[in-house]
Amino acid sequence: MTGWLAIAGLGPGAAALVTPEVTAALDDATAVLGYGPYVARVAPRPGLTLYPTDNRQELDRARHALDLAASGQRVVIVSSGDPGVFAMAAAVFEALETRPDLHGLDIRVLPGITAMLAAAAAAGAPLGHDFCAVNLSDNLKPWAVIEERLRLAVRADFALALYNPRSRARPDGFARVLDLFRGCCGDDRLMILARAVSTPDQAILTLPLSQVRPEMADMRTLVILANSQTRRVGRWIYAPRSMP
Amino acid sequence: MTGWLAIAGLGPGAAALVTPEVTAALDDATAVLGYGPYVARVAPRPGLTLYPTDNRQELDRARHALDLAASGQRVVIVSSGDPGVFAMAAAVFEALETRPDLHGLDIRVLPGITAMLAAAAAAGAPLGHDFCAVNLSDNLKPWAVIEERLRLAVRADFALALYNPRSRARPDGFARVLDLFRGCCGDDRLMILARAVSTPDQAILTLPLSQVRPEMADMRTLVILANSQTRRVGRWIYAPRSMP
Repeated sequence: MTGWLAIAGLGPGAAALVTPEVTAALDDATAVLGYGPYVARVAPRPGLTLYPTDNRQELDRARHALDLAASGQRVVIVSSGDPGVFAMAAAVFEALETRPDLHGLDIRVLPGITAMLAAAAAAGAPLGHDFCAVNLSDNLKPWAVIEERLRLAVRADFALALYNPRSRARPDGFARVLDLFRGCCGDDRLMILARAVSTPDQAILTLPLSQVRPEMADMRTLVILANSQTRRVGRWIYAPRSMP
Repeated sequence: MTGWLAIAGLGPGAAALVTPEVTAALDDATAVLGYGPYVARVAPRPGLTLYPTDNRQELDRARHALDLAASGQRVVIVSSGDPGVFAMAAAVFEALETRPDLHGLDIRVLPGITAMLAAAAAAGAPLGHDFCAVNLSDNLKPWAVIEERLRLAVRADFALALYNPRSRARPDGFARVLDLFRGCCGDDRLMILARAVSTPDQAILTLPLSQVRPEMADMRTLVILANSQTRRVGRWIYAPRSMP
């Protein structure tokens, strides 16, 4: 048995942000699995089978990948961004829990540029001080937990990177988050709405909280709430390294 | 004037984790500036001047880079990991505040694989749920702020990625952090100590909090405190996607 499984991050979109480690794994793979739009970023070639699947099928995809690797295939599961940040790595380890016979399998997690790093870079350096990353999807956790985490993070004056702010299934969540921020941050607090970062569709908005509207975010947007010290310099914004 | 300034992340150490975007900027540069050990990762070549400097000279380095770019040089400032995470990007924007004459300069931030992503990948998926990144260095912020942020983050049950846990100048900080965690997390809470991740010196320790000793971390270590739900599967640890 010479199969292996790599859980790889493709970065936010641009080919120039895919690590050579991930490119090498894809070049050597016999099977690539993932959400359709991510698999579409992998060039077809003889000897490689592509398995695009729907969103929300993470566990089934993980089990399929483990089976293929166990049968001797060289398998890459692709995620956008980093596979360990709100992506496929956790789903694979969850699937592995029920398969102790596969605990010896050759599994590697290959990191990638996660959306918040690319969004921050496009806007300046809003994550230059302490920060948090929060998944706003309540598919797998109660909404009350999300709100409590946001409140504590704002109280600690962390910058906040918000993944999955809004989707068709959850049209109201981001509006509630904005209301929460308005209750505990000043009107001038800076926010970044980074859509489709590093792709031809990239659009970066930097606005004070008072001007942000829920419809400015969709499922391709990464949102950053800056910390209280963050300020503009020219067309950039950044979190100062020192505290006042 | 055709000069530009790229603020680039070299990733945690392995060449296979340097993005093609950063490699292209380095190939096109006439000047590279940075902390000595990071500049040492850039191959010398004719037409490229390397400017290695000491640690804690971030602002001087940033000013120097701005001047070189303004004079027409093609300049890359290198950081380890990602330049926007506790690295050079914030220092450059701070230096830019006092130089409004340079606000039109061509400046780009090129993201990189920050240490916590590589450390998490080596250990499994401990950042698969909401998490925070905290710089434990108190050079530029009061220690009391660090402790309050850690307390609030643990209360919110974020996983915690801790940068700069310990240095010769701050031998006691990490011991105090461990005492704080012992006061608010159970003995079984998992921690990861990832030293020199992705380099030939890489060493990954996964231990319960009760077994972690301050001397297990040094200035090359990235520490992760897992959230309360994180568990082992085989040789991996991961944060489940769902809450109980």
